[in-house]
Amino acid sequence: MLIVQKYGGSSVANAERVFNVARRIMAAQQAGNDVVVVLSAQGKTTDGLIAKAKEINPHPSRREMDMLLATGEQQSVALMAMAINYLGGRAVSLNGTQVGIETTQNFSNARIRTIHTERIMLELERKNVVLVTGFQGVTASYDVTTLGRGGSDTSAVALAAALNADICEIYTDVDGVYTADPRVVKDARKLDEISYDEMLELASLGAKVLHCRSVELAKKYNVKLVVKNSMSDDKGTEVKEECKMERMLVSGVATDKNVSRLSIMGIKDEPGKAFEIFQLMAQEKVSVDIILQSTGANGRQNISFTIGQDDLDVALKALENNKERLTAEEIRHDESVAKLSIVGAGMATNPGIAAMFFEAMYDAGVNIQMISTSEIKITVLIDEKDIDAAMQSVHDKFKLASVRMRMD
Amino acid sequence: MLIVQKYGGSSVANAERVFNVARRIMAAQQAGNDVVVVLSAQGKTTDGLIAKAKEINPHPSRREMDMLLATGEQQSVALMAMAINYLGGRAVSLNGTQVGIETTQNFSNARIRTIHTERIMLELERKNVVLVTGFQGVTASYDVTTLGRGGSDTSAVALAAALNADICEIYTDVDGVYTADPRVVKDARKLDEISYDEMLELASLGAKVLHCRSVELAKKYNVKLVVKNSMSDDKGTEVKEECKMERMLVSGVATDKNVSRLSIMGIKDEPGKAFEIFQLMAQEKVSVDIILQSTGANGRQNISFTIGQDDLDVALKALENNKERLTAEEIRHDESVAKLSIVGAGMATNPGIAAMFFEAMYDAGVNIQMISTSEIKITVLIDEKDIDAAMQSVHDKFKLASVRMRMD
Repeated sequence: MLIVQKYGGSSVANAERVFNVARRIMAAQQAGNDVVVVLSAQGKTTDGLIAKAKEINPHPSRREMDMLLATGEQQSVALMAMAINYLGGRAVSLNGTQVGIETTQNFSNARIRTIHTERIMLELERKNVVLVTGFQGVTASYDVTTLGRGGSDTSAVALAAALNADICEIYTDVDGVYTADPRVVKDARKLDEISYDEMLELASLGAKVLHCRSVELAKKYNVKLVVKNSMSDDKGTEVKEECKMERMLVSGVATDKNVSRLSIMGIKDEPGKAFEIFQLMAQEKVSVDIILQSTGANGRQNISFTIGQDDLDVALKALENNKERLTAEEIRHDESVAKLSIVGAGMATNPGIAAMFFEAMYDAGVNIQMISTSEIKITVLIDEKDIDAAMQSVHDKFKLASVRMRMD
Repeated sequence: MLIVQKYGGSSVANAERVFNVARRIMAAQQAGNDVVVVLSAQGKTTDGLIAKAKEINPHPSRREMDMLLATGEQQSVALMAMAINYLGGRAVSLNGTQVGIETTQNFSNARIRTIHTERIMLELERKNVVLVTGFQGVTASYDVTTLGRGGSDTSAVALAAALNADICEIYTDVDGVYTADPRVVKDARKLDEISYDEMLELASLGAKVLHCRSVELAKKYNVKLVVKNSMSDDKGTEVKEECKMERMLVSGVATDKNVSRLSIMGIKDEPGKAFEIFQLMAQEKVSVDIILQSTGANGRQNISFTIGQDDLDVALKALENNKERLTAEEIRHDESVAKLSIVGAGMATNPGIAAMFFEAMYDAGVNIQMISTSEIKITVLIDEKDIDAAMQSVHDKFKLASVRMRMD
């Protein structure tokens, strides 16, 4: 078998953990497999580098930021190769340029175009474990790029697709995908399997275990994906096309506190104002999530929407600078909000789910600010302080701890 | 003018110093020059990375060590680009792969084969300051290499040669090349100029200001080299083919404490034993410096030689393992020794110099263990504790503080 494994930053945070991972990698190879491993930067390395950059320039160029951040993963793979060598194994580290992970020029958030597999195949033939830097690639003109949030997951799945790997194992610090955050909901249950679509919604709704870009990619190329714990032998959660066992009503609850709410109050009721606002956000590369439009006093409009907390400064500045053009009376923002979502493939065809969900929120005494729904999810925006109680209440209501509710 | 500047690790150790250097670079560009800058890793970064590697593997593979260490310089150039951007300037960082500094495969101690200049020239045309990682290169198969000790000086001079630069400025934390270590000899005098050959001897004898490989390269390609202080406006020391002003008897005193003495005692007086010893050292890549052979009791031979302190463990192990074959009775070592050298182009033709030198040692009450001479230098091995007194005494004897002694 050809296995691609990915280990996150906390799994390789210090020498002891590096050796723990090295032993897992070698076990996979000694079982007769070809093994390609994608690593993130160690522990808080990336945060440290960002802090160093910000000390020098609060708005560093994205190209230079990528040059800087890419060093974190390069250190990880070199150290891991040394650990595997120390344990008597054969390994070689490769960075994005050496592999040839060709990306777009969009620094800090590049998309993978092609992955050249020649060097990796050569090293596998030499019986080496191949250690590849996650999160990074290279442009056609050899500039270093990074892939944005969750980039190492994306690297791993893209490599698995390019190499036509039998399996892509994503190692993290929990046993797999849970029905809710196990640190908050004590009786949260680990799922043995979940569909790509459900995982996609969970990931995009804030479940930290897998990044949605990697799930999209896995779905597109039909990569067999397993989420596992780097510190235990649990068999993890398998992410696949269709779940055989049962079709779930609700498979999990996800929360996201990295949310801010922006409200533009008192806009003149003229055509195109909403368009202007969201065009402005697009120009600033700010992703907008839930949107709510309402009519206020004097027939003036209020438009509220949610964005990631990291984008708040940029978004606020752009809105304030264009306040007159937007005919806005006031721009408000609220950082003390959070999103809570339920996800399940069976939801679309069962109208009772929404009612149960809102009943759970009522039980917990939680006030709902905004609502957004899709085929397989319902998301609400609520006060951040209510988030844990709301998650537990929803988890209880749908009996996620015990057994899945069947749809038919 | 096309200027190549090189700044060492201490010159860019923190954000404040990075900005100090950024301002110097921009001043050079604003004066109408094209500027290419070679940077070392910040402060103690390289030491930190080495410690991390050794924690995992006391004998890491050289290839992986190079992958790890190369990240230090990449961080430096990215941060410097951010600083120059912040001050309103234009800059781009390039690593060894991006420039195309092609080297041999000899990891940890690679030699430069070719430097591709296209990308640098392109960036200069775009009015960018070009910031290049020192100390590193890349093999034809894109493996990252490093150039060994003093590698960043070598990078700078090689780039200056490849780009046909008008001048190569090496910035350090002292005003230039001194007649002796100014931290020890208080009246040490800064030299305005020095010849390549003299600088070569001084560098190889332990004067830390320039690495001898870079001086060799500068001599070979006739690169105009200036050693300057990154924190002052002193015009520094110019290293050039022939010094116009005066031909010096003695231009400086250098010391090196990074020395160990090995003595192989009681070798049978058979042909080829010395050859076997030095072949053994060559196999272990240990450079041997001063050699002394003497006859001991019973007609048996003693061979003593000096090596770098870093090589002591390797050398001792190799000798102990081959003690019988070498017919040695005992292997001794002494780490408490140091080398002291005087260098001067006029020395070869003036036999009085040696006498004055030994008189100075006698004045200081210093016992000489070993002697080695060349056309333009005399080196002695002495007890490490005597080194400062010996340096001062020699400095006084040749009146290096006041005015150079003329030869004719």
